[in-house]
Amino acid sequence: MDAQQFDLVVIGSGPAGQKGAICAAKMRKRVAVIERKGMIGGVCVHTGTVPSKTLREAVLYLSGFQLRTFYGRNYTLKEHMSVQDLAFRVQAVVTRETEVIRAQLKRNEVTTFEGTASFVDPHTVEVVADGSSTLLRGDYVLVACGTRSAHSPDIPFDGKRILDTDQLHALQGLPREAIVVGAGVIGVEYTSILAVLGIKVTLIDQRASFLDFVDRQIVETLNYHLRDLGTTFRLGEKVVAVGIEQERDRVFAQLESGKRVHGEVLISAVGRQINTDLLNPEKAGLRVDSRGRLEVNAFFQTNVPHIYAAGDVIGFPALASTSMEQGRLAGCHMFGAPFRHSPELLPFGVYTIPEISMVGQTEEQLTAAKIPYETGIAKYAELAKGQMLGDEQGLLKLLFDPKSLKLLGVHVIGARAAEIIHIGQAVLSLGATIEYFRDTVFNYPTLAEAYKVAALDGLNKL
Amino acid sequence: MDAQQFDLVVIGSGPAGQKGAICAAKMRKRVAVIERKGMIGGVCVHTGTVPSKTLREAVLYLSGFQLRTFYGRNYTLKEHMSVQDLAFRVQAVVTRETEVIRAQLKRNEVTTFEGTASFVDPHTVEVVADGSSTLLRGDYVLVACGTRSAHSPDIPFDGKRILDTDQLHALQGLPREAIVVGAGVIGVEYTSILAVLGIKVTLIDQRASFLDFVDRQIVETLNYHLRDLGTTFRLGEKVVAVGIEQERDRVFAQLESGKRVHGEVLISAVGRQINTDLLNPEKAGLRVDSRGRLEVNAFFQTNVPHIYAAGDVIGFPALASTSMEQGRLAGCHMFGAPFRHSPELLPFGVYTIPEISMVGQTEEQLTAAKIPYETGIAKYAELAKGQMLGDEQGLLKLLFDPKSLKLLGVHVIGARAAEIIHIGQAVLSLGATIEYFRDTVFNYPTLAEAYKVAALDGLNKL
Repeated sequence: MDAQQFDLVVIGSGPAGQKGAICAAKMRKRVAVIERKGMIGGVCVHTGTVPSKTLREAVLYLSGFQLRTFYGRNYTLKEHMSVQDLAFRVQAVVTRETEVIRAQLKRNEVTTFEGTASFVDPHTVEVVADGSSTLLRGDYVLVACGTRSAHSPDIPFDGKRILDTDQLHALQGLPREAIVVGAGVIGVEYTSILAVLGIKVTLIDQRASFLDFVDRQIVETLNYHLRDLGTTFRLGEKVVAVGIEQERDRVFAQLESGKRVHGEVLISAVGRQINTDLLNPEKAGLRVDSRGRLEVNAFFQTNVPHIYAAGDVIGFPALASTSMEQGRLAGCHMFGAPFRHSPELLPFGVYTIPEISMVGQTEEQLTAAKIPYETGIAKYAELAKGQMLGDEQGLLKLLFDPKSLKLLGVHVIGARAAEIIHIGQAVLSLGATIEYFRDTVFNYPTLAEAYKVAALDGLNKL
Repeated sequence: MDAQQFDLVVIGSGPAGQKGAICAAKMRKRVAVIERKGMIGGVCVHTGTVPSKTLREAVLYLSGFQLRTFYGRNYTLKEHMSVQDLAFRVQAVVTRETEVIRAQLKRNEVTTFEGTASFVDPHTVEVVADGSSTLLRGDYVLVACGTRSAHSPDIPFDGKRILDTDQLHALQGLPREAIVVGAGVIGVEYTSILAVLGIKVTLIDQRASFLDFVDRQIVETLNYHLRDLGTTFRLGEKVVAVGIEQERDRVFAQLESGKRVHGEVLISAVGRQINTDLLNPEKAGLRVDSRGRLEVNAFFQTNVPHIYAAGDVIGFPALASTSMEQGRLAGCHMFGAPFRHSPELLPFGVYTIPEISMVGQTEEQLTAAKIPYETGIAKYAELAKGQMLGDEQGLLKLLFDPKSLKLLGVHVIGARAAEIIHIGQAVLSLGATIEYFRDTVFNYPTLAEAYKVAALDGLNKL
């Protein structure tokens, strides 16, 4: 069987694969993208980022969460929000987003192959679908194969009451109590969504703290709100057994400390299994680490120089935003297009309720590095827009050098945090001082005004 | 009667007066602010920006407007939205914002005087309240007296069915049809709010076009949506008579062209009367122009150098955002604090539904100035966040120099436009090129991503 020839063969159509393919196609390269049937856009679109963030928007909206400031803490817009109400909206966005990606690939004349991919040799990838097989040969290969939910053998998943986060769409109704195991970004995001829905959540993690890359004040603010919504934290606690107590018809998690935690459902968010094990990486000569990751250099090349890797397969931070950029940069590098990469200025968005976003350094990092700093804080409650949106808890914190006034970091918790962080990111990237915020006119009313309020607060402290 | 002595006497506690007072107080000056009883925060808080923008948020939310993408164009969250539902939220924010401003003045040890102000001589202002009078003497005076609705003698206002925009809170119920006279920013903002509420609006203006400072593509996008919501435009039409047809119990506006327009209510948004006529400006030697405005230099000084003016009293753009900055800059200048002012980088926010915001130049301005430019466009429909929010109509347009790639202008229509414009404003202010957007990682999903999509679109055109 002859292999079809391409300049670039991309394994996976998630954020990294997609952007890598389009980048190469725009340089008029012949590009193939391989994806499993019905999974264009990858886990991001079908079970990960897109459904979870859409669910979040729907819950935020339909729960009337923001109106509680006005109408009292028990206010809900729809008294009985059904799983169907929520699922309808999620499905609409997933369908639409799939179409957008499909159209974008088509418009750029990227050829898509449906099936599962594995290496035959360093340049050849076999695509198997419905028993038939196709061989693709690429001068370059981009591995963007992503992850799947990791299943601990200790947890008897049934896809109904004991679920991983990819199975959440199978929930039959809204439980009153839930156990979430794993306080990584995904676990904490789902905890907050469930909490806003009025579900009492017990969040369990082996570690004594969580979201350690986030500024402490911001995490503590989040924790305060999660507790206020009825969440119980069980940190530094190891789950040793999970099961269903038949007599009481409840799920339990047995902790090593002797405690037993109960709920109607248990959601495991304890990690992701990288899909390299399905790829026959050894046939391409690829070196895979103990956790299934491919190691790459600054240009996203693996140990086999014509094979690049991007996205979740290379590990932290494993965000859709960074994966897109990695895919694009890999595409630029393989075909010699110029590019610039500033990993130190990556923004982070955590889509909890309230939303968290940050760029630059945290107080903890600056203290550890013995870099003196001053802070400037704006509370959303002081902003007219915060009041209008019913967000009185939000805050924005600037960290800056008290001598040069250069911006060092921005940390936001509250509505639209992931949007407005990019104002600070631009100022940080372009090397300006916090005087920029003082001297700039912001639209009134906006949450962006928080920058000006925070800058004036910071400058007044000097 | 002895006058009380202050370093600065401020007439008006709206955005300009407030920020001028606080700026001076932070330099440890003795500051007095004069405001009418119960009007702390000025028209901005009580009948203007704050109520209208809060109403807008409430309507946007309670109407379920954003969910129409998912649930169909006739979807509303609350089937019978009452004026009371809307008014409750507005009142809560107005009360809260008044408290915030009062607390801020108090914390900064600004003395407030309730009453109406007028000049006795260039340094002395009389405050009259309930028949009693107080004299205040200031080394400096800041006039931030604001405006009131202008009442044309041709319109028989009754405060019930024929109203100005300051009287809207008196509406008894939601009409099915409304006439809005005046397509300035305020008129167009109210038109869009009423249209989203399902009210058929006829918008009348003498001019053949409106929002002329806004990019044409953006205005045309707005018009398309307003028409789609049932709005009728009567542009280039002069109103010659307004009244109530008793037999049909409807308000009418007779146009010079012979047409007669009907509605249940008529809202006049034809302009604002500047309050200088109430101040005895001649006693201070102040020169007032034919429209009641005070002319100022680049430092906000009037023709009497120790008397400054800021806010609506000095005319265009008469936005809360710019007024705040003017007040602050006036305060800095009078007491010798350094400041920087970049009026060419003022952002504009028009709080229509959908929202509009812009910074830098428009296509029309660049064409007139014979400056070549290229455009880069991102549609919200292509962004995952646009889909999640149900905003498929929004768009962001970058204008840039095709040779140097320098950013020249940013124009946005759609959700959160007034927030995300500040990302472009930072890049514009700091003199960067649109490569910044290409090389920057944006949180996914956000509307801020539109910058990256637009930059790639623009660069692909070169």
